[in-house]
Amino acid sequence: MRPIDLTQLRGLSAAILSDVMDSLGLTRRAMKPFVRPLDDELVLVGRARTGLYMSAFSLRDGENPYEVEIALVDDLRPGEVVVLACNGPTDRIAPWGELLSTASVARNAAGCVTDGLVRDVKQIRAMQFPVFHGGIGPLDTKGRARMVDRDVRVECGGVSIDPGDIVFGDVDGVVVIPRSHEALVIEKASEKVMGENQTRDALRKGEPLAAVFKRLGIL
Amino acid sequence: MRPIDLTQLRGLSAAILSDVMDSLGLTRRAMKPFVRPLDDELVLVGRARTGLYMSAFSLRDGENPYEVEIALVDDLRPGEVVVLACNGPTDRIAPWGELLSTASVARNAAGCVTDGLVRDVKQIRAMQFPVFHGGIGPLDTKGRARMVDRDVRVECGGVSIDPGDIVFGDVDGVVVIPRSHEALVIEKASEKVMGENQTRDALRKGEPLAAVFKRLGIL
Amino acid sequence: MRPIDLTQLRGLSAAILSDVMDSLGLTRRAMKPFVRPLDDELVLVGRARTGLYMSAFSLRDGENPYEVEIALVDDLRPGEVVVLACNGPTDRIAPWGELLSTASVARNAAGCVTDGLVRDVKQIRAMQFPVFHGGIGPLDTKGRARMVDRDVRVECGGVSIDPGDIVFGDVDGVVVIPRSHEALVIEKASEKVMGENQTRDALRKGEPLAAVFKRLGIL
Amino acid sequence: MRPIDLTQLRGLSAAILSDVMDSLGLTRRAMKPFVRPLDDELVLVGRARTGLYMSAFSLRDGENPYEVEIALVDDLRPGEVVVLACNGPTDRIAPWGELLSTASVARNAAGCVTDGLVRDVKQIRAMQFPVFHGGIGPLDTKGRARMVDRDVRVECGGVSIDPGDIVFGDVDGVVVIPRSHEALVIEKASEKVMGENQTRDALRKGEPLAAVFKRLGIL
Amino acid sequence: MRPIDLTQLRGLSAAILSDVMDSLGLTRRAMKPFVRPLDDELVLVGRARTGLYMSAFSLRDGENPYEVEIALVDDLRPGEVVVLACNGPTDRIAPWGELLSTASVARNAAGCVTDGLVRDVKQIRAMQFPVFHGGIGPLDTKGRARMVDRDVRVECGGVSIDPGDIVFGDVDGVVVIPRSHEALVIEKASEKVMGENQTRDALRKGEPLAAVFKRLGIL
Amino acid sequence: MRPIDLTQLRGLSAAILSDVMDSLGLTRRAMKPFVRPLDDELVLVGRARTGLYMSAFSLRDGENPYEVEIALVDDLRPGEVVVLACNGPTDRIAPWGELLSTASVARNAAGCVTDGLVRDVKQIRAMQFPVFHGGIGPLDTKGRARMVDRDVRVECGGVSIDPGDIVFGDVDGVVVIPRSHEALVIEKASEKVMGENQTRDALRKGEPLAAVFKRLGIL
Repeated sequence: MRPIDLTQLRGLSAAILSDVMDSLGLTRRAMKPFVRPLDDELVLVGRARTGLYMSAFSLRDGENPYEVEIALVDDLRPGEVVVLACNGPTDRIAPWGELLSTASVARNAAGCVTDGLVRDVKQIRAMQFPVFHGGIGPLDTKGRARMVDRDVRVECGGVSIDPGDIVFGDVDGVVVIPRSHEALVIEKASEKVMGENQTRDALRKGEPLAAVFKRLGIL
Repeated sequence: MRPIDLTQLRGLSAAILSDVMDSLGLTRRAMKPFVRPLDDELVLVGRARTGLYMSAFSLRDGENPYEVEIALVDDLRPGEVVVLACNGPTDRIAPWGELLSTASVARNAAGCVTDGLVRDVKQIRAMQFPVFHGGIGPLDTKGRARMVDRDVRVECGGVSIDPGDIVFGDVDGVVVIPRSHEALVIEKASEKVMGENQTRDALRKGEPLAAVFKRLGIL
Repeated sequence: MRPIDLTQLRGLSAAILSDVMDSLGLTRRAMKPFVRPLDDELVLVGRARTGLYMSAFSLRDGENPYEVEIALVDDLRPGEVVVLACNGPTDRIAPWGELLSTASVARNAAGCVTDGLVRDVKQIRAMQFPVFHGGIGPLDTKGRARMVDRDVRVECGGVSIDPGDIVFGDVDGVVVIPRSHEALVIEKASEKVMGENQTRDALRKGEPLAAVFKRLGIL
Repeated sequence: MRPIDLTQLRGLSAAILSDVMDSLGLTRRAMKPFVRPLDDELVLVGRARTGLYMSAFSLRDGENPYEVEIALVDDLRPGEVVVLACNGPTDRIAPWGELLSTASVARNAAGCVTDGLVRDVKQIRAMQFPVFHGGIGPLDTKGRARMVDRDVRVECGGVSIDPGDIVFGDVDGVVVIPRSHEALVIEKASEKVMGENQTRDALRKGEPLAAVFKRLGIL
Repeated sequence: MRPIDLTQLRGLSAAILSDVMDSLGLTRRAMKPFVRPLDDELVLVGRARTGLYMSAFSLRDGENPYEVEIALVDDLRPGEVVVLACNGPTDRIAPWGELLSTASVARNAAGCVTDGLVRDVKQIRAMQFPVFHGGIGPLDTKGRARMVDRDVRVECGGVSIDPGDIVFGDVDGVVVIPRSHEALVIEKASEKVMGENQTRDALRKGEPLAAVFKRLGIL
Repeated sequence: MRPIDLTQLRGLSAAILSDVMDSLGLTRRAMKPFVRPLDDELVLVGRARTGLYMSAFSLRDGENPYEVEIALVDDLRPGEVVVLACNGPTDRIAPWGELLSTASVARNAAGCVTDGLVRDVKQIRAMQFPVFHGGIGPLDTKGRARMVDRDVRVECGGVSIDPGDIVFGDVDGVVVIPRSHEALVIEKASEKVMGENQTRDALRKGEPLAAVFKRLGIL
């Protein structure tokens, strides 16, 4: 199987990908709407590198509380998306911030998705690094949580994600394409873009929705 | 009774309309704050055309799941506001998007209010079509919900709305003026605008709030 | 003890102040993430003047429902921050709006923080007056709530605040520095800013996080 | 107008009273289902004596934090129901407990309804004093809240209650009959009891629901 | 395929059925814990007859608001379980009560499960008719909701249910066995009961958990 | 320091212990009211043995998912209380059930407190083993969560608990006495019991609350 070229996804949208996955019976692939982009203009496309957090209420003796997340970020390859699963929504922890963004940019990572909070929002926006988050807040994870596992199956924003799954985010939200279906989903989504273009043109001319939908079958 | 000219409402605000309705004992006329504008700059004024959704978990044989909403949108007249009641807040369905917006613009509709989600946010913002929504997400209604009734009494964002009620939305939120009181509400609101102007001027000069409030009775 | 010069706080951030307070065992000093700035660009620094609201469902005979809040605002001194505790999150009341902002600006107050709603958002943004709020909505407090106490200990956004505490807000959220620790917190935060600068520089050059964290101890 | 004899309400039920009030357009008269009886067997009937709480985070110098509630309970007359409005649901305060129950029993009060918590549950159950509550917990109000007003309009469990309104509670929940409609509501409810008896008899014999409902119009 | 004899399920439990379905990858088959039995002693076993409600805010002219639920109950066969999907948890409607229970008992139905509220709790308990519900409250559906569909796929308490699926409820909650797997689930559950008996015996004798789990593999 | 004899706590109550801790400034020592007893009649007293869970979405190769909780239960000493911290409230996992209860009874443990769910409720009630829980449900932890740490500081039901802290539960809820204050708390609580007895006697005789409170200072 030829590897997928992810750049072709840039012309698609979370809405179209969601529709196509619905049509294939993949109905739980969109993150809940509390996960929002830090910057409405940025699109996120890449393959998931996952991290799983647990709540903690104390530090272990001599513990480096960031050990696993440091290892994850240091291991990022170009085009990968950091996915941090925090059992969100939460008001307790902001696992992502400026310094991790800086390190990720240096590795050409594609972005970050978390159902936890994000901080250093001003600096991250200035970097134009795509971050999708479950809220904004200043609280560091140290003493509140720790990443226990990485590169395992997680749930983030209500969606099950395996390492390597394609993550797509735009202003409408985040969808995750399971590995098994990615070629089919992308192919059908590209087709749907064309159908939507025809529908849009007809509607702009004032043609009745009923007639357009009957002809093209798209809404 | 002469019909109300809705353009005069453009100089008013949701806050002033809410205050005036409060003073008339109409205290449940502002939608809950989870209903937000897609674009903070746009003001929405128009008469309600209502649609009522139910959750669904399967498609009926041969069903067109958009049948009732297509009929509603095709029937829109200039200046009307689509009001989609989804029992929100919800994270399950986005009943409004680009294509319905395009069709509504073609009919010179005034905008859309929903306590469900909205999608295709980028394109709708580009159209400058006023949409007030209960969240953003990519999930189509197909297989998740259907509009069962239209042009009936609904509740949306916690407010009871009858077809034909005036809907007003600005950056502060959405208020609904019941038909029986609309002339009185608009008249009193126009008066209050003038009182607020005097209050603002006095406060800018540094006059004590206590004195200004005693003299003008407005805060 | 020399009074603190609050302008030195302008170079700091809510995230750094939160980290420093964490390191001193002050772990409940950041407001919950539902408290957001009206304007992401504005920074709020000042000392708290507190007001405490209760729900009400009727007006007392001859009552001026704004009496205590008028007294509080008329008593504001330059650099003070109005803190309005509404048991938020709430969808019932917007205790802050344009006119109180206008009066506060006239007194050179530093801003307002509330876990209730705010209204007249457009006008307040135009004034560039920093307001951090628990949501946006048009509902006046009259007949819904009243301020019963002022200049007492309150809880706002989940944080206990005493009159005179330093309140700091930026796009990442609001933190409150208890009087007893303010000099120490500010000193340590200024040090941390420098450490973060070194860390950022190293990360931009692509140095591994593990190495940078080992050397500088900051993430 | 002859005073209502409240003992005749004992043969009724919250469900029937709710149905009758619905039929009269009084559709917001049942407390939300989080308000539950402490003892499923006890029925509560009486006229409301209301108390309104506010959150507090400190004690005033020399304050007796129980002053208003002591005055309310000392003033109870036989057959009255204490209604404590705490903005519930809440997990912060238990305004009702054994000692207030003991004092109320000594005054022949009819019971207590609160949307706050209740404590000393074992002892209150032993007294067979009807209490309907918004949860069980040990937290005293002292330092957490204070009753600020009594014998005013309140909202409790989502229902607006005026002093003197009839409060009825059974295992199905609590309903409040507004003073203006009480004679009519009781009369219609007594009639409905008879209709339900006929319906029940027919259904027990296995008659189809459709036929019984057609004949008697009750479900 | 021989039909399943449902009486053999009476010796099983929701916990064991849940474990067995987990082991087969059927991990979303237990209703959320807000669905509770009216009577902790009663066990519910039967095949689902589903009804799907929508919110309504007015009656249609000449509408019988109970039409579809009357048809559903009149059509019940012995051993069937009424499953009423209300998008719960909800505080708005109690679709089940004494009269529908009476009619169901007359048809030898097995019980009722709803994620809405139930009313007439005292009378239903007296009948010993198994009802699992999403809360208790007096509010009739009339004017608040209507059943729009029956005998279709629904979601109730967070679980997808098709007509004919086996529904099992005991004090631990409600589980639903999909038709495709029912024979296998029942067979494996019966085996697990035996394993648990051995485990229990060993633990009662004080044998270490670690040893028992190593030997029998059950916890 | 002489060890505390925990049997003397049996004459106390969660409400009195909470009041006494309040008076010492220990105001966050009562679990939230969603933590309820399985059996209202049972009192729980003992020292905490803590376990901390994280969510999980897959099993590691060859993992025994119960390893840490088996070790914790096998290590229980007489009079200890298992405290399972699940970030509750949750609807995902029931970490406690019949078999762990059986093993705990065999070790003369005092009971279990969890902010997760409990299952096998009927069997545990039959054992008369005190369990306080955050809900009832059949879902095993396997594949959904794992205990990662034991005998560390946790938060359960909103209260911070260290290993060895005294846990007290009765029908009013669960309170936790920090080690540093336990002798003082128990002494003051015993005194308060006497004061409450005097207050109760006076109130039963019909003495005004105001007079009794003035004389004895207890409510």
